[in-house]
Amino acid sequence: MISQLIEKIREKQAPVVVGLDPMLSYIPQQIVKEKIADHGETLKAAAEAFWEFNRQIVDAVCDLIPAVKPQSAMYEQFGVPGVEVYERTVSYCQEKGLVVIGDVKRGDIGSTSAAYAAGHLGHVQIGSTRLSGFHEDFATVNPYLGSDGIRPFLDVCRSDSKGIFVLVKTSNPSSGEFQDREIEGTPLYEIVGRQTAAWAEEAMDGEYSEVGAVVGATYPEMAKRLRGMLPHSYILVPGYGAQGGKAEDLPVFFHDNGLGAIVNSSRGIICAYQKEQYAEFGETAFADASRQAVIDMIEDIRQYVVVK
Amino acid sequence: MISQLIEKIREKQAPVVVGLDPMLSYIPQQIVKEKIADHGETLKAAAEAFWEFNRQIVDAVCDLIPAVKPQSAMYEQFGVPGVEVYERTVSYCQEKGLVVIGDVKRGDIGSTSAAYAAGHLGHVQIGSTRLSGFHEDFATVNPYLGSDGIRPFLDVCRSDSKGIFVLVKTSNPSSGEFQDREIEGTPLYEIVGRQTAAWAEEAMDGEYSEVGAVVGATYPEMAKRLRGMLPHSYILVPGYGAQGGKAEDLPVFFHDNGLGAIVNSSRGIICAYQKEQYAEFGETAFADASRQAVIDMIEDIRQYVVVK
Repeated sequence: MISQLIEKIREKQAPVVVGLDPMLSYIPQQIVKEKIADHGETLKAAAEAFWEFNRQIVDAVCDLIPAVKPQSAMYEQFGVPGVEVYERTVSYCQEKGLVVIGDVKRGDIGSTSAAYAAGHLGHVQIGSTRLSGFHEDFATVNPYLGSDGIRPFLDVCRSDSKGIFVLVKTSNPSSGEFQDREIEGTPLYEIVGRQTAAWAEEAMDGEYSEVGAVVGATYPEMAKRLRGMLPHSYILVPGYGAQGGKAEDLPVFFHDNGLGAIVNSSRGIICAYQKEQYAEFGETAFADASRQAVIDMIEDIRQYVVVK
Repeated sequence: MISQLIEKIREKQAPVVVGLDPMLSYIPQQIVKEKIADHGETLKAAAEAFWEFNRQIVDAVCDLIPAVKPQSAMYEQFGVPGVEVYERTVSYCQEKGLVVIGDVKRGDIGSTSAAYAAGHLGHVQIGSTRLSGFHEDFATVNPYLGSDGIRPFLDVCRSDSKGIFVLVKTSNPSSGEFQDREIEGTPLYEIVGRQTAAWAEEAMDGEYSEVGAVVGATYPEMAKRLRGMLPHSYILVPGYGAQGGKAEDLPVFFHDNGLGAIVNSSRGIICAYQKEQYAEFGETAFADASRQAVIDMIEDIRQYVVVK
């Protein structure tokens, strides 16, 4: 799957992923009102508002970008109807030719991790039929439980040509609380990084591995060391834009040929119409505002990183 | 919520939770066949087989135990129909008077963690209506992202009287890969344990906190230290039975009055009919086998731990 992602990044000349992480407050009130009129004040109404919002944004930006990253939490907050729209969003984005990174941050052990891997990336066998639950192309995974938690994902990466991004150094302010603690002089995130490099060796797909790493845009100094440690891993970079990560800090995440990383923006894109910079679009043209924000983001990054 | 759990533990005289973690191979073939006859070879058929299996087991054991712990992964493997049955199982168990610990191991940051907390424990506001997505009573959470990930859960614990169990030392063989690494002489799980104790102080509910900890039955030596470090936290103990944890190792997880911990068994209970010990029940009486296995587990633990 990583080779397909790279192909799309090259084709679009854009190492960029749009985070589809809606909140009700992001969605034009007209859409929310319509859905409440149709479904009452229900979880279903909220979920359908998400769907309408996502669909219009995806239609507006899908020719510009290689990938999207829906955030499972935002959908789970609306229970089963929310999860149904999560799956519908994954399917729709794949129909539009986008690679889908499911930001699910799952992590468990043994047969439980195997079930997460099957449900999100792989398949299950029902009688003589092979079926897929959420069928994302990549999933984010949490390493705290160690190899027992990751190995079942590696198996599915190999059998179903899918990929994972292991949380190594997250973009949030408190990520250092545990991740930066030093173990014989080495911070935990580097130990996780080294282990991720070992896992990556077990699931190569061309020059890169199906096993990537999450490293926050807000920590470029740490990224420099991790880049060296993870020669075959794509780095998924959250934290650009709204969280404070800047384009000039991004080159250390990439290899010299402009490959090796993909930068996420969520709020900066999907809420663009709520920002002063794009206010002229107005609420009804929210998706056009998102399109302009994607164009601007790609241009901003191209000043510092050129995909060859 | 912890005070309600303790009340039920006292009432049933059983510090025991049954893990509802089915796999298709655990379910009597007759049930699977019936559901495939009804729904074809679909995700829906598999999910409905889970439901029938869960319902019969819950009916058979609900008078004996205070709580159940459905494992989200097992349901997610069947996509949306699986998640629908997860929610149906949560509702049914609550109707039967059981406390539900959602084993979801979620963990993210900021507004994303807030969305997980709202979806699993709290509520969302749609217009003037307050609704709950999955409405578990407790959820398991992953601490790797630090306080940014946990604080939103603490807020919901307080506002909605719910609880969490933070993964501190998991029961699996590779849990030591990161969790046991020493930071200035202190293993990471103890650092997480200390931080969990601080979080626990922020959400007290009577003598105990809404913030508990997961510590595997397979690591009693570590549990002894963690028990001392976490005076106000309930310990959720996985790993008894199938994973190798023994009743004689359990007292260190408890306070002297038999409170302070709750022991999980999943396969040992729900697959009892597949074990030689309970083979006499046969496939059709699988739920009776589960009931007998619960009675035996409670008796086994009572030899070492008495709830006062």
